[in-house]
Amino acid sequence: MLKSSARLKAFGRRNKQIGLAPGSVVYSGEFTNEPISIDLFRVEADVASYERAVTLDTALDVTQNELRWIDVFGIHNTRIIRRFGDAFQIHNLTLEDIVNPEHRAKVEVFDDYLYVVLRMLWLKDGVLEDEQLSFILQDGLVMSFQERQDDIFDPIRQRLTATPTRFYDGGAGYLLYSLIDIVVDTYLLVLDHYDMQLEALEDTIVSAPRRHTLDRITTLRRDLITLRRALKPLTSMMHSLINANSGFLNEGTKAFLRDVSDHTNEASDRLEALREQLSNLHELYVTNLSIKMNEVMQVLTVISTIFIPLSFLVGVYGMNFAVMPELTWDWGYFVLWAFMLTIAVVMLVMFRKNDWL
Amino acid sequence: MLKSSARLKAFGRRNKQIGLAPGSVVYSGEFTNEPISIDLFRVEADVASYERAVTLDTALDVTQNELRWIDVFGIHNTRIIRRFGDAFQIHNLTLEDIVNPEHRAKVEVFDDYLYVVLRMLWLKDGVLEDEQLSFILQDGLVMSFQERQDDIFDPIRQRLTATPTRFYDGGAGYLLYSLIDIVVDTYLLVLDHYDMQLEALEDTIVSAPRRHTLDRITTLRRDLITLRRALKPLTSMMHSLINANSGFLNEGTKAFLRDVSDHTNEASDRLEALREQLSNLHELYVTNLSIKMNEVMQVLTVISTIFIPLSFLVGVYGMNFAVMPELTWDWGYFVLWAFMLTIAVVMLVMFRKNDWL
Amino acid sequence: MLKSSARLKAFGRRNKQIGLAPGSVVYSGEFTNEPISIDLFRVEADVASYERAVTLDTALDVTQNELRWIDVFGIHNTRIIRRFGDAFQIHNLTLEDIVNPEHRAKVEVFDDYLYVVLRMLWLKDGVLEDEQLSFILQDGLVMSFQERQDDIFDPIRQRLTATPTRFYDGGAGYLLYSLIDIVVDTYLLVLDHYDMQLEALEDTIVSAPRRHTLDRITTLRRDLITLRRALKPLTSMMHSLINANSGFLNEGTKAFLRDVSDHTNEASDRLEALREQLSNLHELYVTNLSIKMNEVMQVLTVISTIFIPLSFLVGVYGMNFAVMPELTWDWGYFVLWAFMLTIAVVMLVMFRKNDWL
Amino acid sequence: MLKSSARLKAFGRRNKQIGLAPGSVVYSGEFTNEPISIDLFRVEADVASYERAVTLDTALDVTQNELRWIDVFGIHNTRIIRRFGDAFQIHNLTLEDIVNPEHRAKVEVFDDYLYVVLRMLWLKDGVLEDEQLSFILQDGLVMSFQERQDDIFDPIRQRLTATPTRFYDGGAGYLLYSLIDIVVDTYLLVLDHYDMQLEALEDTIVSAPRRHTLDRITTLRRDLITLRRALKPLTSMMHSLINANSGFLNEGTKAFLRDVSDHTNEASDRLEALREQLSNLHELYVTNLSIKMNEVMQVLTVISTIFIPLSFLVGVYGMNFAVMPELTWDWGYFVLWAFMLTIAVVMLVMFRKNDWL
Amino acid sequence: MLKSSARLKAFGRRNKQIGLAPGSVVYSGEFTNEPISIDLFRVEADVASYERAVTLDTALDVTQNELRWIDVFGIHNTRIIRRFGDAFQIHNLTLEDIVNPEHRAKVEVFDDYLYVVLRMLWLKDGVLEDEQLSFILQDGLVMSFQERQDDIFDPIRQRLTATPTRFYDGGAGYLLYSLIDIVVDTYLLVLDHYDMQLEALEDTIVSAPRRHTLDRITTLRRDLITLRRALKPLTSMMHSLINANSGFLNEGTKAFLRDVSDHTNEASDRLEALREQLSNLHELYVTNLSIKMNEVMQVLTVISTIFIPLSFLVGVYGMNFAVMPELTWDWGYFVLWAFMLTIAVVMLVMFRKNDWL
Repeated sequence: MLKSSARLKAFGRRNKQIGLAPGSVVYSGEFTNEPISIDLFRVEADVASYERAVTLDTALDVTQNELRWIDVFGIHNTRIIRRFGDAFQIHNLTLEDIVNPEHRAKVEVFDDYLYVVLRMLWLKDGVLEDEQLSFILQDGLVMSFQERQDDIFDPIRQRLTATPTRFYDGGAGYLLYSLIDIVVDTYLLVLDHYDMQLEALEDTIVSAPRRHTLDRITTLRRDLITLRRALKPLTSMMHSLINANSGFLNEGTKAFLRDVSDHTNEASDRLEALREQLSNLHELYVTNLSIKMNEVMQVLTVISTIFIPLSFLVGVYGMNFAVMPELTWDWGYFVLWAFMLTIAVVMLVMFRKNDWL
Repeated sequence: MLKSSARLKAFGRRNKQIGLAPGSVVYSGEFTNEPISIDLFRVEADVASYERAVTLDTALDVTQNELRWIDVFGIHNTRIIRRFGDAFQIHNLTLEDIVNPEHRAKVEVFDDYLYVVLRMLWLKDGVLEDEQLSFILQDGLVMSFQERQDDIFDPIRQRLTATPTRFYDGGAGYLLYSLIDIVVDTYLLVLDHYDMQLEALEDTIVSAPRRHTLDRITTLRRDLITLRRALKPLTSMMHSLINANSGFLNEGTKAFLRDVSDHTNEASDRLEALREQLSNLHELYVTNLSIKMNEVMQVLTVISTIFIPLSFLVGVYGMNFAVMPELTWDWGYFVLWAFMLTIAVVMLVMFRKNDWL
Repeated sequence: MLKSSARLKAFGRRNKQIGLAPGSVVYSGEFTNEPISIDLFRVEADVASYERAVTLDTALDVTQNELRWIDVFGIHNTRIIRRFGDAFQIHNLTLEDIVNPEHRAKVEVFDDYLYVVLRMLWLKDGVLEDEQLSFILQDGLVMSFQERQDDIFDPIRQRLTATPTRFYDGGAGYLLYSLIDIVVDTYLLVLDHYDMQLEALEDTIVSAPRRHTLDRITTLRRDLITLRRALKPLTSMMHSLINANSGFLNEGTKAFLRDVSDHTNEASDRLEALREQLSNLHELYVTNLSIKMNEVMQVLTVISTIFIPLSFLVGVYGMNFAVMPELTWDWGYFVLWAFMLTIAVVMLVMFRKNDWL
Repeated sequence: MLKSSARLKAFGRRNKQIGLAPGSVVYSGEFTNEPISIDLFRVEADVASYERAVTLDTALDVTQNELRWIDVFGIHNTRIIRRFGDAFQIHNLTLEDIVNPEHRAKVEVFDDYLYVVLRMLWLKDGVLEDEQLSFILQDGLVMSFQERQDDIFDPIRQRLTATPTRFYDGGAGYLLYSLIDIVVDTYLLVLDHYDMQLEALEDTIVSAPRRHTLDRITTLRRDLITLRRALKPLTSMMHSLINANSGFLNEGTKAFLRDVSDHTNEASDRLEALREQLSNLHELYVTNLSIKMNEVMQVLTVISTIFIPLSFLVGVYGMNFAVMPELTWDWGYFVLWAFMLTIAVVMLVMFRKNDWL
Repeated sequence: MLKSSARLKAFGRRNKQIGLAPGSVVYSGEFTNEPISIDLFRVEADVASYERAVTLDTALDVTQNELRWIDVFGIHNTRIIRRFGDAFQIHNLTLEDIVNPEHRAKVEVFDDYLYVVLRMLWLKDGVLEDEQLSFILQDGLVMSFQERQDDIFDPIRQRLTATPTRFYDGGAGYLLYSLIDIVVDTYLLVLDHYDMQLEALEDTIVSAPRRHTLDRITTLRRDLITLRRALKPLTSMMHSLINANSGFLNEGTKAFLRDVSDHTNEASDRLEALREQLSNLHELYVTNLSIKMNEVMQVLTVISTIFIPLSFLVGVYGMNFAVMPELTWDWGYFVLWAFMLTIAVVMLVMFRKNDWL
């Protein structure tokens, strides 16, 4: 868990150089020296071709009458990003957004293209991964910019290969929708994951809370804060996208996007429910601590209250006064025992009545 | 209670296959192998006929000039659902919504029909049941899709048989209204149930709180979170339904729906009041714990404060020093008792004054 | 207090029969067999006549050119209510609302009349009473429907008798305004009552908190929740009433209603302030508990810390070892006393320095 | 402090007679028998005349071409207030508002005048005072109605005398603005006061919290609730005033009022910050209590844990069994001391390691 | 940290003279006797000249066809500020705002200029500094008014010198944008700083919480309140600026400002996340205290519960009764030891089972 949290925490922290000219395309993410890699999908009527790691020139080569998806992994090489900008008339401010991996989800409508940025969150071997995802939509072209090779788009790649006609007919807008749809579906999977984590946490708290449990609550709270920071702007971004006045999205695509927006709202509702539940679990944990403390104190009090007076009594008859009549009585010792037992029994009955035992 | 919670928790969790093409009509609920069953109500002027478990062909057979209610139990057989889609021109996205049993309440207006989805919550032998309910409204036709055989529509079935004319005159919109009305009324019954649960809980906390009480609070909190997730979208769904620009709902029906909307708002208000009350009860419980802890500590402190100094004193006269003048005094023992009694009485008076006894 | 709470709690709970046809005029309140009673006020120019317990026929008899107030006590006899509905063209849905005594405050504009429903809250011998109040406004006619004989309208009755001209000139709208005004003023009185209760509570908590105090806080919290449920919809109801597009309310009346709306907003503000104050008082109470616990623990700790080491010392010299040199010293006993006193004094000084005494 | 709180608490409590006819000009504040006093300011071009305690007739005497400020102290003599109403065509509802000293801040636009009501809060010898302030604005005339002689307008009176031309040119609107401006500036002073109180409170809590501190927090909380009730409607009142469609306020004056509105918003922001800070201070105080409790308990536990086992040991060798071999050993006593010292040292080391010392 | 807090706390406190005429240009900040200093930047086509500490006359000298940035340090000399007002037709109310260093961020559109005021927050040697910053935008002219010499604009100065053409082409609007941009970027840096502080705090709380930790939380809370007071109005100010209907901002500049607005919203989101995280950390800290208290109490209880009964037993056999049969048994002493060991072992097993060890 710690590993995922560590990654999550970084989201929002920036190395940004203060005072750069606007539209300065300067990478502000963590340093990496992986090379940038570009995948290219071409769909022409019912034929789809998929080339991995194409050269920049191949990617930039524009041929008519086809649907293309240029999938760029790595945004730290700003020289290459700028080449894309030149080739496809992308505004410098957009390029700057693409290479700064800490943006809130948003949509921007330009004359030449539509720009969408959002965060992709997914689970990899039970560890949460996240990165920024930028899309450029033009006629017949979707460009996606990701930070690393790893992603969640394999099902789309398979469907593109299996049913190219559908995508060809739907156009670039439909492809963009499919990509966003899978991102949002993955959010729901991540929420399922946390749902189960919370259930497990509740079981732990109810049955056997430990100190470690508190760290667990803390980690989960931080994760949910991060999830919320990613999800909240997404909801309004989807709203903007559906209402965007752009020629690159037709009504058919918008109908599909409305469906995605339903899922985003659902995710938002569920996240709020999770947050509330976690907060309740913390309260439950604290209340459990109080209950346990009460039990501990009751045990201490019962033992002390019974034995401290008795110890006083036996102390009395341990004194060495010359004149202590009771000590000489034949039955003194046994009478004292009887008396002490009576006291103990009376006290136990009283504790029982007060519900302390 | 646990059983109902277990069911409730499942709401929102999905087995959805990530990356499916949009409009993929794939069932995502829990696995079941009950057969799908279809009930058919036909109303022609003042005659109503009710057939249970009709064949698919009977259900799909369209005859003019009558009001029909096709009531489908089971949504896991997507082949059958698709048959309905083909027969009544229902969009694939709608079919996908029908077979995914975890949707937020919503209304969608299509040219050929009106689609309404909401959650049905009811109590069965004191246990809360819930499932998704989809309605398709067309001219002279209401289709309802439920997950299981069990439902809350028997009063409507009786009224349909008893006063068919009223439904025939009101048309399909009126029938839809009647079905939604009963769903919302059942929400109010469920809230009554929780209202009584909270009253019982308050009595328990005030009179005899136990550890078990905390689990009860936790369970109720989770249930109210789930209720809220079902109820919150319902409120805005009713608003959309009343303002829906659809030819399938006339003004008369909308007047009735406004009445339902009043009830939904009322339910929403009451739910918020319940949530606040439960949160207050938790605080009450915790404060009660503190009060009890204080009482326990006071007892411990009173006993300790009186007897620890006295035990010290008797310890002193239990020492074996060769020279201890007091031990040889004739009245030493009795003087000491008098002294100790004085101390004890003074302390008791002081505790009484400080309101500790 | 408990009695008022018991009554308040009932608000919102219903015996409603699920699945009734809409507009089914079926009483859903608590069972009663008091007969329905009707009061009738007639104002003709400067003459007002007041008849108690008139017959239904008298009430329904329509004569021109006068202002009438038909005041109906009891809503459980639905046959009589339906008679009113027939005589004055009142929609079945409205009749249904009138006889279901758990509605949120609302206004409904019909062609033939204006319908207003709200809750009347008042103090009777220090006990809070509440019931539903429905008004039907037509030209020259106000009908009011109350649950029981008891109400708060006596000042209006006196003014009607004393200055009939004013009401005659103002018309039915002015009469309706006067009735609503007095209802809202009574809310302010109820808030005053709770204001004083909270002040008394604060005095108790600051001076002498007891276990009973917590029950008091709980009761008050529940009452304020109920007050809020009654008051919140009233605020928006007043807004609707002022903006209602109905011929039965003229501009002059609306100016008066704006004044009532000011009071409703004021009541709403004050209620929020009361709720916040009560929540602060609970925190205060809990903090006081903690302070008291701290004091108790400090006493215990001071006593224990001083005497436990001393008891150990006297225990040492109570041992029966054959060789214990100190025991044989002539001044051993007195040296030990001096040593123990020194320890005790040093400890007391340290406690004083740490602010524990 | 208590004195100021006592006054503040009264705000909102009313003696209002229920069921009065609307526009009944009946004083509902606290009883007083101070006489009403009227000050009159007249500005003609560059000459200002100031008369204290003029007669009613002088005040009501209307002369053309001058700017007048009629400043009325005391609102309990409703006969006099009604005289003003008659002389200046003031609506009865407005007069009713003027004499009921518990109104939320609001603006009302009438054909003949503009009515503004707000609360004046100020510090007098460190004690908070508050009263209601009503303004009537007409052409060339500002009337102000205050509860008592005491007020905050002396700087305005001096400026009126010193620079009458400025006011004469600005007209009545400018004078009204000046009066409201000083009221809002005084709010900011009051906030400064509470700002310093909170700083002092924080110092107390951090350095030397005492039981008394809690009362301080309680008092401050109640004061801030009252401040908020006065300030919240003021913000929206200023908004209404700026947007008021009234001939008595020209654009120049509105520019000035926008400036006042900025200050009101600033005051509102600062109040929220104060409230949050106070709530944090309470949490800080409670946490400090917990820390202190922990320290106390640790001391108790350390002392008990070391000495209770040792006391047991010395108890053992105080027993009187006939056969107890150790007692007869020559070095028994010294060996036991060594053993006990070892135990004590080991325990101290363990406590140190667990960070308990 | 304390130093920064001290400075921050001052923000919002004012020495304002109550009752001044509006537009009274009277400095209300802290007293200072630093002289006012003016820097002047002139850009003519591709040549930029930078003069430090120019005379007032130089600054006020207007030459055509160039872009100027007049950067004024010090606002306490109101005579000089008034000279600017006269030279550039600035309204008195604006001048008053410039010299009162406690304003909320806002934009005001005048015919002759655009006025922007906001707060500049930055870190200097790890200590937070803040001051008010006012901008006047006219054709070819940006005037900035700062409180002190120190600022964050050096990167802009360097870029002005390095690439004057870009600024010359962009005009005064572009320069204003650049200055605001750097202010907002610095907010993000400040948030990064607090992000790291919170991480360090969390590490401290999880590993080794101390009393000092609570002071840290308190300081951070107060700082975040202050940050929020500066940031909240900034968000709406940016919104106003983008929608400002002013000829001094062209569409190109507004596109850049929208980018800044994105960053402001991002900062706002992050601040809310920080606030929530800090609040969670406080809860974590308090819960940790409870856990530690529980541990302490368990140790005390275990020790007491084992040894108090045993001490009682050895006390019994320390009594001096004449007849105590056990004392005379040969094996009495050893049997007692065996019995006591058994009791101790049984208790330890029970504690282990109850999870207390």
